[in-house]
Amino acid sequence: MRSGFAAVATLFASIVLPPSAIAASPVVHHPLDALTPQEYWTIYETLRGEGHVHEKTLFGSILLHEPDKQIVLKWTPGGTIDRKADVVLLDEGKSYASVVDITSKKVDEFHALKGEHSPFTATEEHQVGEAIKHDVRIVEALKKRGVTDLRHVECFPTPAGYIGLPEQKDAESRIAWGGCANSEGAISGSWDREVAGLFFVVDMLSKKVLRVSDYGVLPPMPTTGIYDGTGGEALAGTKPITIMQAAGPSFTIDQGLVSWQNWRFRFRLDPRQGPVLSMVGIEDSGKLRSVMYEGALSEMYVPYQDPEETWNSHVFLDGGEYFMNTGLGLIKPLISGIDCPDYATFFSGFFYKENGAPFERPQLACLFERTKGDPAWRHGDSNGTFGRPTRELVLRTVATVGNYDYVLDWRFGQDGAITAGVGATGILEVKPVADTDVSKGMSKGLADSNAPGGPVEFGHLVAPGTDAVNHDHFFSFRLDLDVDGTKNSFMADKLVQYKIPSNKTEYGRHVIWAMRPTMPMTEGEAKMDLSLQHPSMWRFINSDTKGPQGYPTSYEIMPGQTAGSLLPSDEWPQKRAGFSEHQLWVTPYEPNERFAAGTYVSGSRG
Amino acid sequence: MRSGFAAVATLFASIVLPPSAIAASPVVHHPLDALTPQEYWTIYETLRGEGHVHEKTLFGSILLHEPDKQIVLKWTPGGTIDRKADVVLLDEGKSYASVVDITSKKVDEFHALKGEHSPFTATEEHQVGEAIKHDVRIVEALKKRGVTDLRHVECFPTPAGYIGLPEQKDAESRIAWGGCANSEGAISGSWDREVAGLFFVVDMLSKKVLRVSDYGVLPPMPTTGIYDGTGGEALAGTKPITIMQAAGPSFTIDQGLVSWQNWRFRFRLDPRQGPVLSMVGIEDSGKLRSVMYEGALSEMYVPYQDPEETWNSHVFLDGGEYFMNTGLGLIKPLISGIDCPDYATFFSGFFYKENGAPFERPQLACLFERTKGDPAWRHGDSNGTFGRPTRELVLRTVATVGNYDYVLDWRFGQDGAITAGVGATGILEVKPVADTDVSKGMSKGLADSNAPGGPVEFGHLVAPGTDAVNHDHFFSFRLDLDVDGTKNSFMADKLVQYKIPSNKTEYGRHVIWAMRPTMPMTEGEAKMDLSLQHPSMWRFINSDTKGPQGYPTSYEIMPGQTAGSLLPSDEWPQKRAGFSEHQLWVTPYEPNERFAAGTYVSGSRG
Repeated sequence: MRSGFAAVATLFASIVLPPSAIAASPVVHHPLDALTPQEYWTIYETLRGEGHVHEKTLFGSILLHEPDKQIVLKWTPGGTIDRKADVVLLDEGKSYASVVDITSKKVDEFHALKGEHSPFTATEEHQVGEAIKHDVRIVEALKKRGVTDLRHVECFPTPAGYIGLPEQKDAESRIAWGGCANSEGAISGSWDREVAGLFFVVDMLSKKVLRVSDYGVLPPMPTTGIYDGTGGEALAGTKPITIMQAAGPSFTIDQGLVSWQNWRFRFRLDPRQGPVLSMVGIEDSGKLRSVMYEGALSEMYVPYQDPEETWNSHVFLDGGEYFMNTGLGLIKPLISGIDCPDYATFFSGFFYKENGAPFERPQLACLFERTKGDPAWRHGDSNGTFGRPTRELVLRTVATVGNYDYVLDWRFGQDGAITAGVGATGILEVKPVADTDVSKGMSKGLADSNAPGGPVEFGHLVAPGTDAVNHDHFFSFRLDLDVDGTKNSFMADKLVQYKIPSNKTEYGRHVIWAMRPTMPMTEGEAKMDLSLQHPSMWRFINSDTKGPQGYPTSYEIMPGQTAGSLLPSDEWPQKRAGFSEHQLWVTPYEPNERFAAGTYVSGSRG
Repeated sequence: MRSGFAAVATLFASIVLPPSAIAASPVVHHPLDALTPQEYWTIYETLRGEGHVHEKTLFGSILLHEPDKQIVLKWTPGGTIDRKADVVLLDEGKSYASVVDITSKKVDEFHALKGEHSPFTATEEHQVGEAIKHDVRIVEALKKRGVTDLRHVECFPTPAGYIGLPEQKDAESRIAWGGCANSEGAISGSWDREVAGLFFVVDMLSKKVLRVSDYGVLPPMPTTGIYDGTGGEALAGTKPITIMQAAGPSFTIDQGLVSWQNWRFRFRLDPRQGPVLSMVGIEDSGKLRSVMYEGALSEMYVPYQDPEETWNSHVFLDGGEYFMNTGLGLIKPLISGIDCPDYATFFSGFFYKENGAPFERPQLACLFERTKGDPAWRHGDSNGTFGRPTRELVLRTVATVGNYDYVLDWRFGQDGAITAGVGATGILEVKPVADTDVSKGMSKGLADSNAPGGPVEFGHLVAPGTDAVNHDHFFSFRLDLDVDGTKNSFMADKLVQYKIPSNKTEYGRHVIWAMRPTMPMTEGEAKMDLSLQHPSMWRFINSDTKGPQGYPTSYEIMPGQTAGSLLPSDEWPQKRAGFSEHQLWVTPYEPNERFAAGTYVSGSRG
């Protein structure tokens, strides 16, 4: 498992009374605030009123359509807020994109999508899944494996990201693929119950299975306790650690504006992007200095790496394709005391159902301060030691996408740093293989021992017959920095070797490194890669605003542990997730370029 | 500032009664335990008894001489422990290396060092510093700058790491260089009081200044509050966070063996290396499985990057050169509540003075559990969410070397991970320059605007006339892994592109990545570099011990955020700190290769 790195904005309108949260009736205080239940209903009624909602119409996506940035920046409290929504409808297999003006209750735009589709909906996945399971070829294949009781069999159509299959020839068709699981005898769930070797391609519209491929019968994976839900007792001798903030948190929230130390920011909980931070600034001697207009997760990319179609079809663009696959949005409720400290403040959110109706989800985000017992700074000398403890503010959500749970943090430091932290937990999705013990060799499902250049392995046997297939996780964040205002430039400070000109060559140092500030002038030049051999520091500067020593003010982007994509750029998965080719892409502000793999990812050809 | 990455072993014999520590009379429970006061005195008396200690003899280094690993591994509690020490003496400018057998009270080895020297001692630095300050050329140079009151002037001779200067021609000479500071008017200390442009080379033995170079007069840097010692009040609205472990810690310490969860380990506090972990293992179903024989900081390398001799002479090998520069050892006392939580357990240590006498330093290490409010693991699905909170054990020390304070952590996770964490804090050492504002250009002290390839900068103006010079921080750790025993091999699992052989070329995926296990067979092959484009995973495996699926058991080395050296390999600083050229070096066990830049760093030519 490898990790990539990679931010857009909403406010969840909520008033918080410490120590626990009280969800107030949501109100729009700011143009970037989340959609309210009343607004979801206005959207629904407006579309229905103009004849766009029929009996079988599914709402694939209802998202805030943000006002133009310039309008937001000019807006002041008490001013008019014009509200709009981006809506994607799926109607009898056809996808439509719409902009609904909530304020004036009018449909601004409505057009059919060409070659792109609505995100998959839970309803169609369930209906098509039922149809697949009863396809004669599937029934036959299951029978070959001794499975005749279909009550515990589920078939999962997942969006077929374009890879040039004959079945995908018609760009307007809505194609899925996948496999089946038989949960008979399982402890809980079906992640370890995959039916080996079975693969299908299905037309989501006609609910017809276009192809069934059988890569061979293997015994079911052994039923194992995949994870221990209750956890059992703590190890002997484990003593409690109690963390309390008896006087309440140090942050305040006023009409959605979070204030902590010198930080000021808003956030909304978005069904697709999760938390969208906005209007992030620092109060400096009574003046609010802007840092970031918006920051949010833009896309996720999880390609599995297995030679067999059953598993190399696992190429997930989880942000754009999967955020509504359970009908509940990308982020899921948090558990107090496990996901967040029990003194955290929790926030609910209003998302939409496939019938267009709003619903409230509890504990979708938590906000808490923490101190980790580390010094913020310290210095000791022969006179003694000075220092101060540190604390940070954490805004946390968890995105659960199938088997994986991604912990998404926005952390604010006292040193001016904002950290976008990503953690992966959950359970492994595993592939059935013939191997039970690798000490005497590996099957073709697990390895190619005759590969040119030497043997290679495609995964790791984690239990008898159970292969955890190699895969990557790339997270792309969209960050719209406004350092001391909107007029920002991007600087790459390269560290280069520098020959000392005046030095005698016989002795002393001849070569040092120095910093060469460079300003990429085009999007092409501003595709940045990380390299230990050719390092550079990435900054957004404001040439109009000078610090006390005359430098333009700036904010640095520091990547954490990251990864590069190893797939050739002409491979379809890599084309569709082209953003994974570079670690940083700098582009001018363009409201339609919010999503790294495109707005409509289903059906996208990159 | 950039950071490198980089881990050897002692136990400080201590019995701990929660919640605060009680320093017991130190006893040797294990062959790798730290030297006791009684042992320091035996070393002193044995050397004196054999005629090696004279009136002016300084003890440059007294370190535990570890027994052979095979002897330690065969040793069982109650068995004989033969104790030895490595001692370096500085006698009238000559350095001697000695091995003293403490048990039999005999000097095993005693020889003069050739071309290498004792670490610098505080005594000689002070004496030579006084001599420099009164050198006529220095007095004259200070007078040119209006400084005639020498009471607040200090001159600092620092070890002249070899760079081929004419003054360094004689390998037996003990050469230092440096500059002076005038603290008149300073708030506290002299880090911002450097006398601009003044550089000297001095013979530590004769206390004669060999050369004074004057690179030009500049006004003193303005007196600034470098750091706010008391810190003032917390920001308005800051509410307390209370962390308590009322029932005491979950770890126990029995005769120096730390037990926490399934982890077992020992540590000693070493004057040169700081904490030396040893005998690290995991208890697995009642059986102790070894993980690491020893792990410790091996060397630090901090080269500054300035074209002027005054500052490019700042090339510090802080581990080998500086650990006794204040006469107190590398690590310094910790402050409860700032460096470590106030519920932490603290450990004192016994180091030596330059006259060979032992002394006790309080609070040199702390050990604490912490929970950060993050989940250890969690998974949610439509049935609900399971998970568990996490905690970790932290062994912390702080190495203060001049202006910098390095926070050195060994962290033990519940997931089997050991993290060697390094943090840098403290204050900047700054260079006086002519610039007060850079908006209209920069002086030659700060930048070269006519450099081939475009302008480059050598540092950053942090206050008027005050340049924070570019520099690197490299930390090299020595890790002696014993995965399930001593018979280990090193594996590099490379991630390579793999062409799927059977796939039709018209459609589908053609190229995936796969893992190619490789085993470097020589030290040359086992110099490992990090690359996003050519990634590999580094593991130490035990081919004789198989896991449940038949894989050899192994332990992975995962580098964190790291850096490569940008200096050419034929530059002297790079030759002396050659370890910074690669991120991982794998070498067979060799007790004399503990230190990445050599055992005797002073005078070393790489």
